[in-house]
Amino acid sequence: MIYLDSVASYPSLPEVDEILYSTAKNNFANPSSSHSLGEQGKELVEGAREAAADSIGALSSEVVFTSGATESNNLIIKGVILPLLLKGQKPHLITSILEHKCVLSISRYLESLGCEVTYLHPNSDGEIQPSIVKNAFRENTALVSIMHVNNELGTINPIAEIGEVCMSEKIPLHTDAAQSYLKLETDVDELNVDFMSLSSHKVGGPKGVGIAYIRDLKDLDISPVVHGAGQEFGLRGGTLPTPLIAAFGVAIQSFSKYYTLEKTNKLKRQLLEGLEKANIKYRINGGRNVIPSCISLTLSSSNIQALLRCNHASLALSQGSACSARSIEPSHVLTALNFDREQASKTLRISFSHKNTGEDIKILLDEIIKFTGN
Amino acid sequence: MIYLDSVASYPSLPEVDEILYSTAKNNFANPSSSHSLGEQGKELVEGAREAAADSIGALSSEVVFTSGATESNNLIIKGVILPLLLKGQKPHLITSILEHKCVLSISRYLESLGCEVTYLHPNSDGEIQPSIVKNAFRENTALVSIMHVNNELGTINPIAEIGEVCMSEKIPLHTDAAQSYLKLETDVDELNVDFMSLSSHKVGGPKGVGIAYIRDLKDLDISPVVHGAGQEFGLRGGTLPTPLIAAFGVAIQSFSKYYTLEKTNKLKRQLLEGLEKANIKYRINGGRNVIPSCISLTLSSSNIQALLRCNHASLALSQGSACSARSIEPSHVLTALNFDREQASKTLRISFSHKNTGEDIKILLDEIIKFTGN
Ligand SMILES: Cc1ncc(COP(=O)(O)O)c(C=O)c1O
Ligand SMILES: Cc1ncc(COP(=O)(O)O)c(C=O)c1O
Repeated sequence: MIYLDSVASYPSLPEVDEILYSTAKNNFANPSSSHSLGEQGKELVEGAREAAADSIGALSSEVVFTSGATESNNLIIKGVILPLLLKGQKPHLITSILEHKCVLSISRYLESLGCEVTYLHPNSDGEIQPSIVKNAFRENTALVSIMHVNNELGTINPIAEIGEVCMSEKIPLHTDAAQSYLKLETDVDELNVDFMSLSSHKVGGPKGVGIAYIRDLKDLDISPVVHGAGQEFGLRGGTLPTPLIAAFGVAIQSFSKYYTLEKTNKLKRQLLEGLEKANIKYRINGGRNVIPSCISLTLSSSNIQALLRCNHASLALSQGSACSARSIEPSHVLTALNFDREQASKTLRISFSHKNTGEDIKILLDEIIKFTGN
Repeated sequence: MIYLDSVASYPSLPEVDEILYSTAKNNFANPSSSHSLGEQGKELVEGAREAAADSIGALSSEVVFTSGATESNNLIIKGVILPLLLKGQKPHLITSILEHKCVLSISRYLESLGCEVTYLHPNSDGEIQPSIVKNAFRENTALVSIMHVNNELGTINPIAEIGEVCMSEKIPLHTDAAQSYLKLETDVDELNVDFMSLSSHKVGGPKGVGIAYIRDLKDLDISPVVHGAGQEFGLRGGTLPTPLIAAFGVAIQSFSKYYTLEKTNKLKRQLLEGLEKANIKYRINGGRNVIPSCISLTLSSSNIQALLRCNHASLALSQGSACSARSIEPSHVLTALNFDREQASKTLRISFSHKNTGEDIKILLDEIIKFTGN
């Protein structure tokens, strides 16, 4: 199986699997327990929290462990907006039509509760420009939520610039950085963000754990999504999953040993040069400012449906995002870029990991050539 | 380390650790992806869902995977109450002062939104009687939430009888069965419940995964707590953590190979007989109807604080629940039973797993004897 779907989930790193196993086996205590096994668990949790905080230039006291980026998006966006709604205010949220489905689902929910929501439209490259964010500001704008890197196109949004625009109006900025974390610069000060969502399984860590970064957490009125017994600064209940958190910590510290920009760029170059050499028409959908690890291609002369069917067991590729993989409708992202069903059906999202080799790309190219007419 | 804290977290089963490792290593795909690796992941998830459903006499379509019992409690209680509040109704929730802290925290949150909440008081054994549930019913009672087994006392509530009382008034019943699952009968029809919360790490499975059982899920108006991209019948967003779910499935199928009533009862008997033989005064706090795996003892002539301090590295014991372990206040459960600080400080919660032997109990007894005056 050639795996070219790292955007949906990144292959687990070997040291991550080892620590997951050994921690599950040896440190099964509740890390809130006060005996020594519990305390050892707590140390593992706090060590991972520090590694996570360091990796984004934050304080440990601003890092909340959640079950993943989806929950982090829920905690941050609802956490900011709901208390305002409950005070009888009518807050305004700015987001975009290209966000991950969970953000759209959260936004629609908040809309149903009386929150005003502006869904910004990207330019033709799928990019949200700072100026359109600025133009959307209202008196009651309480939060801007714009993803760092789009999970279908790979498009990188100019978050630092959007952050400047937000800062000048003292409006907090959240970014869903699930796709950019450890692959691009995601220092919270460089990016000028107040909130950030991260996911472990996008960087070789285990599924089921993520982070909500909350700047100055202690001074804010954020309401929990999962109410609990006081864990995570009172913001997220549930027994802390020591093995998942410890393994996520190891992923954070190990990822750069595996994933390098140079190698990833080389794979992408090989793919595009191969297509050109074979005279295969393609369009890159995400514009020029795209993350190296991902590319969305529309191959108008190729029978992508047949390619996928025939290679079902041997090539792991996506069309839209994994969430919409079993839907016959074009994804909301491709729809937003005005793709019709035909174009969407000829679109491939190819995403790379450290496991991919030049040989993988050769095989993919051969398959594309096989399924391309003239 | 002698581990006597299985109520806080049960030791991970060997086959659970193995499947966790092998699934994390080999099936790192997103189980929503449509390629074959994704489909294999989905099969693992659905296999575990069936095992879980079978274990409680439910349908697979009524089992929602969450991050744990805390989140399940949030999903069920808020999921039922919030839509009513949003329709402008004033629903009434019945729960008890002995519930897990997360349920109390959810209840207080809902109260702040306008929900009426009745907090039932237990009898002196820590038990909630069906008659007091019945007496609390109001016209607008929308949900009753009573835990099956208390996590500090081990007291078993008469859920089936409470369920009958609720059924006769067509009021839905939720039970937090985190402590009873696989240790007592938890068939949803036998227990007459509409909703149930379960946690993997209380039955030898991994931390970070649990279940919300929702009877007739498809016909109900339940609002999600974690909004997502349509996963889990639209009720719980986030990439499904294949390794956690598969390992939970294995725990469900393996637990009874390890944990037996007979062995657990024998350990408890040995402990109580040992105390009697040594003429050590003790009181059992949870009444007569207590789960075998747990016992809460107040040892009025023993210096429990010194015992815990001296055995910090060798004996894993709790006083209240893990959540309140680092607090100097008596837990809310002991407070509800009118314990003062002195009594609470002389209270031990001892909980057993299949890993415990008669030798462990002997060592514990020796330590208790050592720290007991006359
Ligand atoms: C941009 C983005 N946000 C959020 C998520 C959801 O992350 P998780 O699976 O950790 O909930 C994903 C991936 O699924 C994503 O790509
Ligand atoms: C009765 C009860 N409910 C809920 C929980 C929380 O479970 P989880 O850690 O899976 O969120 C626990 C244990 O911590 C418990 O004993």
